[in-house]
Amino acid sequence: MTPDQILTPMLDWLDLVGVAVFALTGALVAARLNQTFVTMAFFALVTGVGGGTVRDLLIGAPVFWMQDPWVAPVCFATALLAWFTPPRWWEGDGLEYADAMGLASYAVLGSAKAFAYGVAPIPAAVMGVVTGCVGGIIRDVVANRPSIIMRPELYVTAAALAAGLCATGLALGFDRALVWPVAVVAGFGLRAAAIRFGLSLPSHSGAEGDLRDD
Amino acid sequence: MTPDQILTPMLDWLDLVGVAVFALTGALVAARLNQTFVTMAFFALVTGVGGGTVRDLLIGAPVFWMQDPWVAPVCFATALLAWFTPPRWWEGDGLEYADAMGLASYAVLGSAKAFAYGVAPIPAAVMGVVTGCVGGIIRDVVANRPSIIMRPELYVTAAALAAGLCATGLALGFDRALVWPVAVVAGFGLRAAAIRFGLSLPSHSGAEGDLRDD
Amino acid sequence: MTPDQILTPMLDWLDLVGVAVFALTGALVAARLNQTFVTMAFFALVTGVGGGTVRDLLIGAPVFWMQDPWVAPVCFATALLAWFTPPRWWEGDGLEYADAMGLASYAVLGSAKAFAYGVAPIPAAVMGVVTGCVGGIIRDVVANRPSIIMRPELYVTAAALAAGLCATGLALGFDRALVWPVAVVAGFGLRAAAIRFGLSLPSHSGAEGDLRDD
Repeated sequence: MTPDQILTPMLDWLDLVGVAVFALTGALVAARLNQTFVTMAFFALVTGVGGGTVRDLLIGAPVFWMQDPWVAPVCFATALLAWFTPPRWWEGDGLEYADAMGLASYAVLGSAKAFAYGVAPIPAAVMGVVTGCVGGIIRDVVANRPSIIMRPELYVTAAALAAGLCATGLALGFDRALVWPVAVVAGFGLRAAAIRFGLSLPSHSGAEGDLRDD
Repeated sequence: MTPDQILTPMLDWLDLVGVAVFALTGALVAARLNQTFVTMAFFALVTGVGGGTVRDLLIGAPVFWMQDPWVAPVCFATALLAWFTPPRWWEGDGLEYADAMGLASYAVLGSAKAFAYGVAPIPAAVMGVVTGCVGGIIRDVVANRPSIIMRPELYVTAAALAAGLCATGLALGFDRALVWPVAVVAGFGLRAAAIRFGLSLPSHSGAEGDLRDD
Repeated sequence: MTPDQILTPMLDWLDLVGVAVFALTGALVAARLNQTFVTMAFFALVTGVGGGTVRDLLIGAPVFWMQDPWVAPVCFATALLAWFTPPRWWEGDGLEYADAMGLASYAVLGSAKAFAYGVAPIPAAVMGVVTGCVGGIIRDVVANRPSIIMRPELYVTAAALAAGLCATGLALGFDRALVWPVAVVAGFGLRAAAIRFGLSLPSHSGAEGDLRDD
C-alpha cells in the first residue's frame, strides 16, 4: 500500500476524533457556566468546527461539514456525553493532552489543505493556526471569557510551530509522509511541555517604561 | 396557480419584513445603549442580515443582500424609524411576537435553502438555526451583552424545532407546501408559549456536584 | 500612460502601506494590554486584513491575502516593529492621521472593488465601510474592549462618507480617476477634523424620555 492508502482512511477517522475532542472542550465550558443543553450543543459545534470552517472560507474550499453528514452529529453526541456525565470526569490532564494532540494535528492538516489549494507558504501556515485555534477563540468570545489568544501560555505558539514546520517542509518539496508526522510531534511536544512545566511566553511591558498613564 | 407561483412573491415580500423585524431589534439595542445613529444603522444591518449571511457563506451560495438592492436600504430605513420614534413604542409584546415569527420563518427558510444546496439533513437543520439566531448573537457580542445563546429561555430551541422539522420533512420527501407551514407554526408556537408562560430549559449544575471550586 | 497604468502599481504599494498602518494599531492594542509577541502578531494580522477579508467573502472574491505572499509577512514585520520599539514612539497624532488615511483609502477601495464585482450601490458602499472598519471591530471584540462601532467619535461616519461618495460617483458613471481622489479626500478630511476638533455624533437618549427603568 502507498502512504496515501494508509493515511487517508486513518485521517478521516482521526478527523472526527479531533472534532469530538474540540467539541468536548466547548461543551465543558458551557457546563461550567451552568448553561442549558442547547447552549452546550451550540458550543460543542462552534468549538468543533469553527477553525476548519474559517479556514475553508478563506481558502475558497467547500465548508467541510456541509456535505459530510457525520461532523455535526458527532458534535451533538459529544454534547450529550458532556450533559450526562459529571464534569470532574473530564477535568484531569487527559483532556488537556488530547486537546494538545488535536491542536497539533489540526494545525498540520489546516496548513497542508491550504497549501493544496494554492495558498502561499506564510498564509498557509496562518491557516494551520486558524484551524487549530479559531474554534476556541469564537467559543471564548461568545462566552465572554478571555480567549486563548490573550493568555501567555504556549498554545497558539504550539499551533504556529506545527503549522510553520508543515508549510516550510511542503514548500521545500519534502514528502508529506515525512513532514506531517515531524510537524505534529513538534507541535504536540511543545504544547505538552507547556502543560507539564507551565511554560509561558514573555509579555510586553505595555506603557510601563513610558512614565505615562494610559 | 401552482403553490410555487403563490409562494415565491409572498416569500420575497415576507423576507424583507423578516429583515426589518430583526433590524428593528438591533436598532433598539443601540438605542437603549445611548448610541449614535451610525451605530444604530450598523446594529440594524448586522442583526437583519447576519444570520442569512453566515448561512450563505457556509453553504456556498452568493450572499443574499449583495445583489439584492433592497435589503440594506430596508435595514437603514428601520434604523431611521427607530431613531425618530420613542423606544417605548416598541417595548410591548408585539415586537417579541413579531421576532418569534421572524425566527420561525427564517429557521425554516434557512434549512430549506441549505437543503436545496445539497447540504446533508443535520447540517441543513443547523443552517436554519444559524439563519434565525446568528444575527442576534453577533449584535450581542459586539454590544458586549450576554447573547441569546447564553440565556435559558426557549429561543434557540424554537429555531431548532422549526429547522429540524423542516429538514426532517424534506429529507423524508414530503412536499414543501406541507412541511414549511407545519414547521413555522411549531417553531412560532413554542417561542410564543415561552414568551407567554416564561418557559425555560433546565441548566447544567456546573461543577456543583463535584465538591470542588472551579 | 493611462491613469490605470499610473494608478495600479501605486495602489498595490499603497495597499501594503495601509495593511501595515492598520496592523500597527492592532499590535499596539496588544502591547498596551501587556500581551506576548504571538498575541501581538495575531492582532496585527486580524486588524490588518480583517476588513478586506470579510469584504472578499461577502462579494464572492478570492480572499486577497491568500494568494498574495506579501500581506501576512508585512503584518508580522509590523508586529516585530511594535515589539522592539517603545509604545510612546507611536502615541502622537501621527499614527491617528495615518490611520485616518488608511480608513478613507480602504473605504474607497472596498466599495470600488464591490462595485466591480456587480454589487448594487448601497451594499457596495456598505462593503467600503466594512473594509475600513471591521478589522478594528474584530480586534476590539477579541480584546474585550468597547469597539469603535460603539463610540460616538466620527470614525465609521468618515468611512461611510468616503464609501458613499465612491459608490454614488461610480453608479452615476463618473470616471474613477475623479471619484476616487474626491472620496478619499472627503473621508480623510472628515476624520482629520474629528481628530483635530474632537467632533462626535449626537447620541440617542435611550429610554430616558420614557420615565421607566430598563
